[in-house]
Amino acid sequence: MARIHNFSAGPGVLPEVALRQAQADLWDVADTGIGVLEHSHRGKAFDAIHQRAKQRVGRLLGLDDDQAVLFLQGGARGQFFQWPMNALRGGRAAYLETGHWSKLAIDDAKRYGTVDVPFSSKQTGYDRVPEQGEWGELHEDTLYLHYTSNNTIYGSEYHYVPDAGRAWLTCDMSSDFLSRPVDATRFAFLYAGAQKNVGPAGVTVVVIRKSILDRLDPELPAVLRYGKQVEKDSMLNTPCTFGIYMIDQVCRWLEEDVGGVAAMEKRNKAKADMLYAEIDRSGFWKAPVAKSSRSRMNVVFRAPNADLDAVFVKDATAAGMSGLKGHRETGGLRASLYNALPEASVQALVSFMREFERTKG
Amino acid sequence: MARIHNFSAGPGVLPEVALRQAQADLWDVADTGIGVLEHSHRGKAFDAIHQRAKQRVGRLLGLDDDQAVLFLQGGARGQFFQWPMNALRGGRAAYLETGHWSKLAIDDAKRYGTVDVPFSSKQTGYDRVPEQGEWGELHEDTLYLHYTSNNTIYGSEYHYVPDAGRAWLTCDMSSDFLSRPVDATRFAFLYAGAQKNVGPAGVTVVVIRKSILDRLDPELPAVLRYGKQVEKDSMLNTPCTFGIYMIDQVCRWLEEDVGGVAAMEKRNKAKADMLYAEIDRSGFWKAPVAKSSRSRMNVVFRAPNADLDAVFVKDATAAGMSGLKGHRETGGLRASLYNALPEASVQALVSFMREFERTKG
Repeated sequence: MARIHNFSAGPGVLPEVALRQAQADLWDVADTGIGVLEHSHRGKAFDAIHQRAKQRVGRLLGLDDDQAVLFLQGGARGQFFQWPMNALRGGRAAYLETGHWSKLAIDDAKRYGTVDVPFSSKQTGYDRVPEQGEWGELHEDTLYLHYTSNNTIYGSEYHYVPDAGRAWLTCDMSSDFLSRPVDATRFAFLYAGAQKNVGPAGVTVVVIRKSILDRLDPELPAVLRYGKQVEKDSMLNTPCTFGIYMIDQVCRWLEEDVGGVAAMEKRNKAKADMLYAEIDRSGFWKAPVAKSSRSRMNVVFRAPNADLDAVFVKDATAAGMSGLKGHRETGGLRASLYNALPEASVQALVSFMREFERTKG
Repeated sequence: MARIHNFSAGPGVLPEVALRQAQADLWDVADTGIGVLEHSHRGKAFDAIHQRAKQRVGRLLGLDDDQAVLFLQGGARGQFFQWPMNALRGGRAAYLETGHWSKLAIDDAKRYGTVDVPFSSKQTGYDRVPEQGEWGELHEDTLYLHYTSNNTIYGSEYHYVPDAGRAWLTCDMSSDFLSRPVDATRFAFLYAGAQKNVGPAGVTVVVIRKSILDRLDPELPAVLRYGKQVEKDSMLNTPCTFGIYMIDQVCRWLEEDVGGVAAMEKRNKAKADMLYAEIDRSGFWKAPVAKSSRSRMNVVFRAPNADLDAVFVKDATAAGMSGLKGHRETGGLRASLYNALPEASVQALVSFMREFERTKG
């Protein structure tokens, strides 16, 4: 059947031009007579793909020479333990708690040291992220500050980069990665599961400063040591080759077809503004997140009651709009507007919401 | 260009029928209007794929009700530490050392307890696997016996299942997984990186006995606990969804088109017999592995000297045969004859070898 509007929170919609290229390359990539899944990760054909993907991520983020790009397995959740296991070593870190995933990252970090949580919006239902500096002074021994730049489930997002003072700045960027310009050189460590904005599930982008590698635990199993992964250029063992290939394809689209992250941000802002304008228009829809913290990636809202939410999801599905049910932890509705979601999908959703309000309101 | 003969040691050749289906499903899978990469791992469409893949693996292995199939990330090498981290807990295990990968598994296991190595063929260049029981009596406290059923680099393979006595039987089956019938119910734990016989890189099949889960370390990060992964049916966090999809496609081919693992073994034996017969025919080629340990998956051999090996690889590549260079650790030549490699590819290789011997010998 024809492709429908896909508002999934992840794995999410991918650029159609990347899917078309992947269809061809599954059979025969770069005129090698071998499909992209079937190439050795140590051969020339795959190495070219890997180096290109790394360079594209580096250019799009504007990294400096001290920052290495890794493509690891295990998801962002794998980084929740791997990072503190490497970095904390009984020391002290600060985590900003703004949702489900930041809470899980805190729980894992506690295994490896002392974790301060100088800001949490848990008591108000994770309805916002902090203002710059709202978390106060960090303890002087703080090794790093960790935050979650976009909260997929609760629909909030930082619209600035936190100041970590003398501590390393670290971030889970999974759900707004490459959706806008960010000064990535400020980070000691950042990571993103690919399946929201940059590829399929199964590969996690990690950016780490090479100059901090000698501060990390040297005694861990090789697979878990960032230093070893940097030394081996993500090829310590067989990586998720297709995931890396897709990242290259998606980043090619982002660089060449979209025009880079600044152009991407304009598109994303236009899409989000359109949807929030409809949510705010009449008072029929409710959006629980503080306006200054609203996410451009995951728009969380609800109808006047849970029964209408359910009707909305059912009717929207019938109308060719998928993935609008809110997370099981929040209920309600959620529309994810990742990079690859066309503006036409948001227009279709807004029209549908207006008609829904007219007939069911 | 036309597809060529792919003897890669992994990622390796996949069934063309699975690739053709994947090409279509990247755009729109199961008439959902959404491509397979873009479906939520928690949605109905992907759940159907996941359950089917699990059932197919279970049927092909002949598992019993106490055995759970997991699809994890991190590669077989991830299991080298994850298994002993869960199971060993300061106790004692025995590892049979038959090559590069079993050695790395031993190194990782030593972090978590006492490791006995009652058999090693290291001194003779990993030229064989042990005979049944050649490792003698295991220490009475041995929790588990670990072996590597096929040695991808050195080209040796067990043609029987080791008797572990009272210890748990555990195995890295990465490079001969589902290549022949095996009594999988004898194993407490087995695992296989998918990228040799059963799918693309980025997903690892793990089979674990549910009745041993309460003997494993309950204090590890959730992602690393098999018990948690079984409880969450591999969906603790986003798995490598495309890898799971491809396993379903490859196992469909194996069940329905090939006729199951017994039929697969016949094909694999015919392919390997054909190639070893040519290697043994005139004395021109040398095969370093003891005949009783010869692998049907990775055939390791060499020309009379290293210069001729290099010429062979170059000329074979020009003739449309890829992946024949031996591993950097061994030198020489290697032809990997995984499930999906057509018999015609082996015939082409044998003809090429014969002509090479005639002209260069």
